[in-house]
Amino acid sequence: MIVLTSADIKKDIQEQLIDKYPEVEFRFRKDIKEAEEELPEAEILVTLGEDLTEEHIYQAEKLSWIMVISAGMDEMPFQAIAEKNILVTNARGIHAVPMAEYTIHMMLHSARQTTVVQEQERRKEWDRSPVMMELHGKTIVIVGAGAIGSEIARLANAFHMKTIGINRSGRMVEPFDETASIDNLYKELPKADFVVSVLPKMASTDRLFSTRTFSAMKKSAVFINIGRGNVVDEEAVLRSLNRGAFQHAILDVFNKEPLPSDHPFWEHEKVTVTPHLSGISPQYQPRAMGIFEENLRTYLSDEGEYINQVDPSKGY
Amino acid sequence: MIVLTSADIKKDIQEQLIDKYPEVEFRFRKDIKEAEEELPEAEILVTLGEDLTEEHIYQAEKLSWIMVISAGMDEMPFQAIAEKNILVTNARGIHAVPMAEYTIHMMLHSARQTTVVQEQERRKEWDRSPVMMELHGKTIVIVGAGAIGSEIARLANAFHMKTIGINRSGRMVEPFDETASIDNLYKELPKADFVVSVLPKMASTDRLFSTRTFSAMKKSAVFINIGRGNVVDEEAVLRSLNRGAFQHAILDVFNKEPLPSDHPFWEHEKVTVTPHLSGISPQYQPRAMGIFEENLRTYLSDEGEYINQVDPSKGY
Repeated sequence: MIVLTSADIKKDIQEQLIDKYPEVEFRFRKDIKEAEEELPEAEILVTLGEDLTEEHIYQAEKLSWIMVISAGMDEMPFQAIAEKNILVTNARGIHAVPMAEYTIHMMLHSARQTTVVQEQERRKEWDRSPVMMELHGKTIVIVGAGAIGSEIARLANAFHMKTIGINRSGRMVEPFDETASIDNLYKELPKADFVVSVLPKMASTDRLFSTRTFSAMKKSAVFINIGRGNVVDEEAVLRSLNRGAFQHAILDVFNKEPLPSDHPFWEHEKVTVTPHLSGISPQYQPRAMGIFEENLRTYLSDEGEYINQVDPSKGY
Repeated sequence: MIVLTSADIKKDIQEQLIDKYPEVEFRFRKDIKEAEEELPEAEILVTLGEDLTEEHIYQAEKLSWIMVISAGMDEMPFQAIAEKNILVTNARGIHAVPMAEYTIHMMLHSARQTTVVQEQERRKEWDRSPVMMELHGKTIVIVGAGAIGSEIARLANAFHMKTIGINRSGRMVEPFDETASIDNLYKELPKADFVVSVLPKMASTDRLFSTRTFSAMKKSAVFINIGRGNVVDEEAVLRSLNRGAFQHAILDVFNKEPLPSDHPFWEHEKVTVTPHLSGISPQYQPRAMGIFEENLRTYLSDEGEYINQVDPSKGY
């Protein structure tokens, strides 16, 4: 059985896998270009998910399982995959830790006026007047109550914040204090001191955050987007901030990435830009390959359930 | 019974107290200067603790209780207070929430290279290369395992950090994973990714953080001081950082405050200076006066125990 990778797997992880699964032939290739000619032989493919075309799927005659070691599958040729009935699993959930730490960090950064405090430090100015707010007692509305949203809520609870999760059905999800359905978003927004979007790219949430959404927030609210850029109408962000509809936008994802250097977000004093780094972590590959390994055991033994199985006909 | 204040109590808190305790005569004065001439009549004094002299204590003939609505009592005339057998209570513990939030914030700030990321933002540079570290899995050694240290540990636990508390006896304290006595500090320091000092000003901990202490830390360790400046040998901080003994110092308190504008800490790239603001919070007075009120009920009813009673002969 041949396992082919089109992602640059760390040396120590490669060695552990070779050691532990002598019955498997691993072919570690750095990228799809290196892996391409071996595709017809591969039974299992480990990929970042952005490198696959329909052509690849048709070439990969023996392929029965694709392990996507990321969470974003916007580029996957799902139609071809569904036709060939290939098992797909992904690594959703592994971004939860760094993305939750990012979110807590950015809330504290904003509440404790860190940009102002650091500017004072640069001027060697001892000034204790910037108002320090606490997260304690504040309300966070998290739009998208999956693995990432729940991890943010778990940490926010530890800070004694009130946590409200928004999902499709409104069904209760641990560890949120409350949940509501997306249809009731406008009832929940006025309660929020912080609104966090962790929505993936989907047609149904395209430009969900519009002038109307921002108008429903408190004037003092901070909006954080760590999901996907397409859920935000970027013109509406600027217009709403300029007329004081909400206080500050902290954006890690954008309609177009990299964010063009002439984009007004960069210089806007009410916008904090970070370059899509909320999910970056040195633990990324160990965690993703940990899921691969558990699924590999299921595959080899033909017993148990796959972690993070994806329905190719739905794309999630 | 006359309650005199020498601290500027917020209007809404004043009104609530007057409403709730009609049997008490409140005299809300802004500072000790305003309060001075009424001292001889006061039975209870509410103070920030830094404004009292021995002279005041002798003038205050009827005084039987001093409520210090802060935690620092470095300036209190304890000898005179002990002589006159005056009850002293303080507001220790109320700084726990903002100081713990500060500490988590600064650890994330450092782990996620926020200074570098913000500098890139200023240059409109989309650069995802700065290495993002997680708090998850890291070890924090907290020197001083009282109310503040325990609150830091509680939050750090939520981030799945390993928490080690240092106190005098080494006795186990919730919610630390482990505790050790100050005599064993040098055994614990090499384990730490973050070392946090929350020590108050005491002769026994003067310059505890010396060249020897910094040498015992990991080269990658970050040191955070939110206790008192005197526990740190500031020359040793600079020398140790310059030879790479540890990675970064985040200092909120200093030997001399305000930190003089020509102090090398301001410009040192391995030092982050904040102007003694870790304990600042809009919740400060409500929380402190909450303790006062609970103690007032004990005082009036002569039943129950005082919160945060201080032994004037020891000063804590």
